[in-house]
Amino acid sequence: MIRPCVVLGFRPADAAAYGRIIADADGRIARMVEFKDADEAERAVDLCNSGLMAVRSADLFALLERVGNDNAAGEYYLPDIVMLAASDGRASAVIETDAHEVAGVNSRAELAAVEAIWQDRRRADAMREGVTLVAPATVFFAHDTQIAADVTIEPNVVFGPGVRIEEGAVIHAFCHLEGARVGPGVSVGPYARLRPGAVLEEKARVGNFVEIKNATLGKGAKANHLSYVGDATVGEDVNIGAGTITCNYDGYFKHQTIIGDRAFIGSNSALIAPVKIGRDAIVAAGSAVSRDVADGELRLVRAEQLVKPGWADRFHDAMRKKKAADKKAD
Amino acid sequence: MIRPCVVLGFRPADAAAYGRIIADADGRIARMVEFKDADEAERAVDLCNSGLMAVRSADLFALLERVGNDNAAGEYYLPDIVMLAASDGRASAVIETDAHEVAGVNSRAELAAVEAIWQDRRRADAMREGVTLVAPATVFFAHDTQIAADVTIEPNVVFGPGVRIEEGAVIHAFCHLEGARVGPGVSVGPYARLRPGAVLEEKARVGNFVEIKNATLGKGAKANHLSYVGDATVGEDVNIGAGTITCNYDGYFKHQTIIGDRAFIGSNSALIAPVKIGRDAIVAAGSAVSRDVADGELRLVRAEQLVKPGWADRFHDAMRKKKAADKKAD
Amino acid sequence: MIRPCVVLGFRPADAAAYGRIIADADGRIARMVEFKDADEAERAVDLCNSGLMAVRSADLFALLERVGNDNAAGEYYLPDIVMLAASDGRASAVIETDAHEVAGVNSRAELAAVEAIWQDRRRADAMREGVTLVAPATVFFAHDTQIAADVTIEPNVVFGPGVRIEEGAVIHAFCHLEGARVGPGVSVGPYARLRPGAVLEEKARVGNFVEIKNATLGKGAKANHLSYVGDATVGEDVNIGAGTITCNYDGYFKHQTIIGDRAFIGSNSALIAPVKIGRDAIVAAGSAVSRDVADGELRLVRAEQLVKPGWADRFHDAMRKKKAADKKAD
Repeated sequence: MIRPCVVLGFRPADAAAYGRIIADADGRIARMVEFKDADEAERAVDLCNSGLMAVRSADLFALLERVGNDNAAGEYYLPDIVMLAASDGRASAVIETDAHEVAGVNSRAELAAVEAIWQDRRRADAMREGVTLVAPATVFFAHDTQIAADVTIEPNVVFGPGVRIEEGAVIHAFCHLEGARVGPGVSVGPYARLRPGAVLEEKARVGNFVEIKNATLGKGAKANHLSYVGDATVGEDVNIGAGTITCNYDGYFKHQTIIGDRAFIGSNSALIAPVKIGRDAIVAAGSAVSRDVADGELRLVRAEQLVKPGWADRFHDAMRKKKAADKKAD
Repeated sequence: MIRPCVVLGFRPADAAAYGRIIADADGRIARMVEFKDADEAERAVDLCNSGLMAVRSADLFALLERVGNDNAAGEYYLPDIVMLAASDGRASAVIETDAHEVAGVNSRAELAAVEAIWQDRRRADAMREGVTLVAPATVFFAHDTQIAADVTIEPNVVFGPGVRIEEGAVIHAFCHLEGARVGPGVSVGPYARLRPGAVLEEKARVGNFVEIKNATLGKGAKANHLSYVGDATVGEDVNIGAGTITCNYDGYFKHQTIIGDRAFIGSNSALIAPVKIGRDAIVAAGSAVSRDVADGELRLVRAEQLVKPGWADRFHDAMRKKKAADKKAD
Repeated sequence: MIRPCVVLGFRPADAAAYGRIIADADGRIARMVEFKDADEAERAVDLCNSGLMAVRSADLFALLERVGNDNAAGEYYLPDIVMLAASDGRASAVIETDAHEVAGVNSRAELAAVEAIWQDRRRADAMREGVTLVAPATVFFAHDTQIAADVTIEPNVVFGPGVRIEEGAVIHAFCHLEGARVGPGVSVGPYARLRPGAVLEEKARVGNFVEIKNATLGKGAKANHLSYVGDATVGEDVNIGAGTITCNYDGYFKHQTIIGDRAFIGSNSALIAPVKIGRDAIVAAGSAVSRDVADGELRLVRAEQLVKPGWADRFHDAMRKKKAADKKAD
């Protein structure tokens, strides 16, 4: 039999002033009553009306036409449609859900409280599914975070939407991930930020103060320190030295950086996109590379070492005197 | 009528061994009594003495002279001045405050507990005033933090003293702010550190692993990645590339960097202060700029690209052999 | 008298289905009984069997031989050895421990819960020993973390194993330390990562987005911003500018950087190891230093400033047109 209305009910810890649902064991509703209109026996019932109802549109508007305001508050109550249908001999049904699923949010504090409940349940789910959370209360999930078994997540990790983490990966403390795929056995962080489009293939490593955006790091590739890798395709076993920056933006357009397998990018280098670094190539530390580097080639962009013996000693003397003079003048 | 003493009272959850205040409904004190000297009826009173009293100096020292030690502990009790004034026919008054306002701190653990209470109340206040806290328990305020309505603060944000945040700004996860002003619609972080004197004008953006100190970023200016901007004035819509450093200190003095509107600072650049970059100027990526750049000018400080074909292949061969030989020698 | 067995007992908040220990006031065990086999009086006893027992090996195997399965579950129970010894007239003893010390861990959630209890107790211990924790719940200790009195630890600090912090040091927010020694009066962070082998001598300072690995910073030395210092020995009062990178790895071997007292490393420099910077030497900002710098010498590795007046203005014009044309083509 099709019920004219199905009401979503719940049993809160404190039923307070919620409207009550009087139903039989099968969920067939005998009576819906606002708290103000309820008698003592009805108030003793803890099955409450969440305010969510499913009604066939053909029934809904016809029933709404008949809702009156003959009640303690003189108001028009939506739930009255259940009783009106009942007066036509058509019983409605209640189904129950957990109280937290229909928690009302009337303020930012209540929103934060509902978020906290959701996060706690999500953390418990993750642990049940085989994810190790060292300090669960410090890990924040998004609605769609996917984490495989035997992943370890250290304290203080924040997931934005669109993250998938595969088996055996470790997310170290203080990481922030969004729109990223982290392959099996990958190590991320601490202090790594993966932005949308980041893809870390098997056993890649992204270390501290590193930002990856719209870039793939091949199997075993490493970017361990203080780097920005954006709009890039990085091959297998590439080593990106500390302080490396992909210069992907000219103020108007974004450009791609492509790095071949096993290339070695020396520390503090700038790769000025669009640029291609060949397989096994080496970029010397401190180089600003503006032209493609061929396979197996060394690229070195570094000015002469200008040596001024004794200059620093003279500078220190002069500055110390200036500083002393400045102080005297105060 | 002026009361000789006004005592700050409170009602703790557990009155324990606090001194009790026996007062009438109007706060007129009938008796102050140490716990040790109190009878059963007095111990049943839950209004306790916080130890804070306001006394007119003209009265205070005269009354103190008369305090004796005829009590259970043989001690001189400051609160006795209330009873001495009463014996002169001059009744004192009690006013009440919340227990947490006069919580005693006898250890670092109690200090942390009082701090935690204060933080919780401050977070609740912020949310009541229209600030969205995604995870309130992870946000730490200073006593004077000012945050406008419709600001969003993500998890793990720490405020030092002197911060003001204006309407619609977003503070992303893992930020640390102190002595900073964040304008309307500004985006900060994740992982941004704003130090004293940081001023971010409307819709400016400061991104990950960026430190701003004693510097103004104009309307719409951006410093999105891995930069240090100190002692600087940055114009409107300026783009500061990843890895840019203002070299503001020579070991003795601090110097200013001034960047004109719409200038573009290429990634991994060093701006050696004092230095001025003109409006619409471009500094090429990887440049160490030691002289002023004029309006609309390009400055490029980059050495020749030295190309050594096949060098890297030969290097890899040699090093692999060396590594293998080292292993054999072990 | 030597007892054949000593059983570690505990009194949990909820004794549930644990096996019970019936003992006298001196800990002499009268009876060990599985929950399933216990009568009502035995179940009312809250002293439970942790499952940990100390047995002399000479006794253990002889007793185990005699364990049978004549009980409610038809299982072989290890604790039966206590009753078997008793039947020989040799009474065993129970000693008690806190319930949390023998908490069972059957899931990742229970592991996290036990970790949380341990962390809370460790934080309380630290505060009792004179360490200031601003927000104790956000500080995570390792089993062997050593922190002297009058150290201050701000929110969100994670300790890996092997850390020792000496008197008066301050660990600012968002730090991660492992295998490091932090000397007296040192300031670390915010956002500093100390990795194994980091040693910070008295009053050294390590600032934001700085990683120190296998390196010593001498007394009063500073690395305040965005730097990687690895495999290095840094002298007293050295100033390491923002964005400095020690290039310690050539893809095959690690090399050392040695910096003399009072040297000044200009911002955004790359020190290409192995390399030695002399006392009082100055490395100019933006230099990639590949050869040793002598005491008191200035090293400057910087290309010519190439100036193209008006170039940027023409570039902006051209790019704006291209961008507009691209849009029209869409």
